[in-house]
Amino acid sequence: MSADLPLDDLRRHGHEVVDYLVDYLARVEGLPVLPAVTPGEIKGLLPPSPPLTGESMDVVLADLDRIIVPGLTHWNHPGFFGYFAVTGSGPGILADALAAAFNNIAMMWRTSPAATELEEVTLDWLRQMLGLPAAFEGVIYDTASMASLCAMAAAREVATDSAARQYGLAVGARLRLYTSEHAHASIEKAAITLGIGLAGVKKIPTDAEFRMDPDALARAIAEDRAEGWRPFCVVATVGTTSMSSIDPIPAIADLCAREALWLHVDAAYGGAAAVVPELRWVLDGCDRADSLVVNPHKWLFVPMDCSALFTPRLDVLRQAFSLVPSYLQFAQMDEVRNFMDYGPQLGRRFRALKLWFVFRAFGVDGLAERIRNHVAWAQEFAAWVDKSPRFERLAPTPLSLVCFRAVRDDFNEGDLNKLNEHLLDAVNRRGRVFLSHTKLGNRYALRLAIGNLRTTLAHVRLTWDELNAALDELNPG
Amino acid sequence: MSADLPLDDLRRHGHEVVDYLVDYLARVEGLPVLPAVTPGEIKGLLPPSPPLTGESMDVVLADLDRIIVPGLTHWNHPGFFGYFAVTGSGPGILADALAAAFNNIAMMWRTSPAATELEEVTLDWLRQMLGLPAAFEGVIYDTASMASLCAMAAAREVATDSAARQYGLAVGARLRLYTSEHAHASIEKAAITLGIGLAGVKKIPTDAEFRMDPDALARAIAEDRAEGWRPFCVVATVGTTSMSSIDPIPAIADLCAREALWLHVDAAYGGAAAVVPELRWVLDGCDRADSLVVNPHKWLFVPMDCSALFTPRLDVLRQAFSLVPSYLQFAQMDEVRNFMDYGPQLGRRFRALKLWFVFRAFGVDGLAERIRNHVAWAQEFAAWVDKSPRFERLAPTPLSLVCFRAVRDDFNEGDLNKLNEHLLDAVNRRGRVFLSHTKLGNRYALRLAIGNLRTTLAHVRLTWDELNAALDELNPG
Repeated sequence: MSADLPLDDLRRHGHEVVDYLVDYLARVEGLPVLPAVTPGEIKGLLPPSPPLTGESMDVVLADLDRIIVPGLTHWNHPGFFGYFAVTGSGPGILADALAAAFNNIAMMWRTSPAATELEEVTLDWLRQMLGLPAAFEGVIYDTASMASLCAMAAAREVATDSAARQYGLAVGARLRLYTSEHAHASIEKAAITLGIGLAGVKKIPTDAEFRMDPDALARAIAEDRAEGWRPFCVVATVGTTSMSSIDPIPAIADLCAREALWLHVDAAYGGAAAVVPELRWVLDGCDRADSLVVNPHKWLFVPMDCSALFTPRLDVLRQAFSLVPSYLQFAQMDEVRNFMDYGPQLGRRFRALKLWFVFRAFGVDGLAERIRNHVAWAQEFAAWVDKSPRFERLAPTPLSLVCFRAVRDDFNEGDLNKLNEHLLDAVNRRGRVFLSHTKLGNRYALRLAIGNLRTTLAHVRLTWDELNAALDELNPG
Repeated sequence: MSADLPLDDLRRHGHEVVDYLVDYLARVEGLPVLPAVTPGEIKGLLPPSPPLTGESMDVVLADLDRIIVPGLTHWNHPGFFGYFAVTGSGPGILADALAAAFNNIAMMWRTSPAATELEEVTLDWLRQMLGLPAAFEGVIYDTASMASLCAMAAAREVATDSAARQYGLAVGARLRLYTSEHAHASIEKAAITLGIGLAGVKKIPTDAEFRMDPDALARAIAEDRAEGWRPFCVVATVGTTSMSSIDPIPAIADLCAREALWLHVDAAYGGAAAVVPELRWVLDGCDRADSLVVNPHKWLFVPMDCSALFTPRLDVLRQAFSLVPSYLQFAQMDEVRNFMDYGPQLGRRFRALKLWFVFRAFGVDGLAERIRNHVAWAQEFAAWVDKSPRFERLAPTPLSLVCFRAVRDDFNEGDLNKLNEHLLDAVNRRGRVFLSHTKLGNRYALRLAIGNLRTTLAHVRLTWDELNAALDELNPG
């Protein structure tokens, strides 16, 4: 018995896999974005127990094609416009394959000097691309959910003068964090995780363009202080998930400075736009943030998962989380960066490699050009919506996300919601494109999120045609 | 400008990458396990700013070979015996490459039906392989650090009757968790993260074989209750990191049942041994646990990252974490599993694919055979240590980890510690194998952790020879 797959077999199957995945990317556009499977259908095709003896990779790869791929939602499809569109780009795929082969764990400098230093360098490249100050240092996390959680833990650490780390929150103040009513759900999940609780999160109302209202924020903080709460953190968003609104960071930063609150900016999606010179304004004021997260796995064409946190206060994160057991100590420990020190997770994949591959393959100008196109196409789609009597836009379109709905004069809001739900369902069932939805107040809104690298203007136009055709069917005459 | 790397180029470079990584695996044994680089050396070889225009993948791949690979710690080296040895196996590498190409996100059933159902099926396969009851359901996390954190959050939820989720810990009881003095540092990190604090973790002493003492545990719980603490969870370990000791789960489970405490078992490393019929005893009593974590990325030959949590109380995890914003709701939501519901992270890679590839390629008997070998070789190495007058074993060797040190009659403990530190350094500098260390009480111990798939008995024997040769140099005459 060979211990691992023999290298000759790995080579042969590796070449097959390369051909398979390239062919997949070539043909994915012909597949329905959402698979036509029902709950339990895939499970029913898989044996209930594992095989006792090893099987040939030929069989496994055939089953992949026969059972798994037909049940995938194709996120790497150029017609994927749901949630936020992402990309497993060619350079990123190559890097992830290599990372799995190296299988090195980037927890400490010693366990992978090149991975550690490449993480420092590529994050500094990204910092420069975003126009953030040199004092901002970076850490890669798996997701923005974790990056924001760690930033909030750092804020908690400062607010409790390190009592949180030592004694927990049971003996401490009632901490409160402020974020917009349109903030990502991960902020509330982090508050749950951190022992702050949902009651420790105050949702601040937004203006007509869905941006956090700094006056309402100031009032909430004052009221809370009067009631014995301990305000400790504001999470502002650059590019909210529902409608890509951009909170007024400069005004919020003023307030945070005045109130001595940690300012965390969730720019998981929107931050990438700052790579485009004429869109750099999206991060205005963020040089005054205490932390900011941008997801290269969202709009920077890096495969899942890779989320970058930047902060001028990396020492506070370290203070919050560092805990080095004797079995991990090594001589040069204090001279180097050990990325395990900045969060709850010890094990860390070699994620910097795909950042390096993607940044080098596309270059800063190349990345900017691609993001610029996505924004331009969203504006074009928004203009079609605005010109059409059958549709209306429900939110501004500062970036590459369009929120809109079908309208009919003779329908009330309830009817419109139903119509748009059916419309979305009809378009998604046709399978050529996939859009998602949100609720804006009581209104059911359709979301077109442009972000996949292989999407072209033709796919955006196709979406418009599909929407109109589906609406024709729902709205005859 | 092509949006992504043109598919013809991706195909060509993909084939190059396959050849590169297969050649890497073929030659890695000839490379020093730990690279001979100094802090900052890799950074110095990388440009301080990102390229403005895209570069050819030929150049990037050449730089990978020239700059990055010489700076890697080679975790996939058959002479890697440090920390816990892991493996990026051939089938796992193929799966990770495919997952990057699909780039599908397994947050909800709808965003990847096949990924969701494959996760359910492969985890149930693993459950059967470990001999856990059918009521145990699984979730994949990135790391055991996160899996344990989520289990502890579920325990917190039960103990506070859901007040933690809603109100945080500021208004609640002083929670306390119990774990052995040899538990993994991630347990304390999770306590920090969860707002329980380091003071909320009580370290229970161990017996002569480094196993948690259930009587000491019972006393600690009683004392804490008397002092107004609220005991809520015990974390027992099957295979501690320092010395692979196995806590007495049956006695601890009795106590947890009596005291109504959540029992979480950290079997991140040791759990895999239960795949071997004659080693299944390592999980004795774990059928009574409330949760248990095993890392397929540790000793089941799956590349980083993939950690499996099993629990008969998945509903409690869901209750602790589920929070579904309107933009993620879909029609069949409640009929299916949505894996985002069980932790703080929304985004989730398609990790089940590599589990499926590895389980099928090796089969249950194949996995058992490989793990059995690792354990047998560790016993063999332990016997060499025991027979040699120059070395002594410092802990039992129930699994594949040997803790030992060099001895000299004329040395006191301080001298012995220095000798062994120098010995470890000398062996690791020679570069053919890599061992790590720990502290057992005040004793500096060397750790030989067998777990890489390409390791053979010859590599274990080589390690013994290297140790003796290095000791000859340090101990002339």
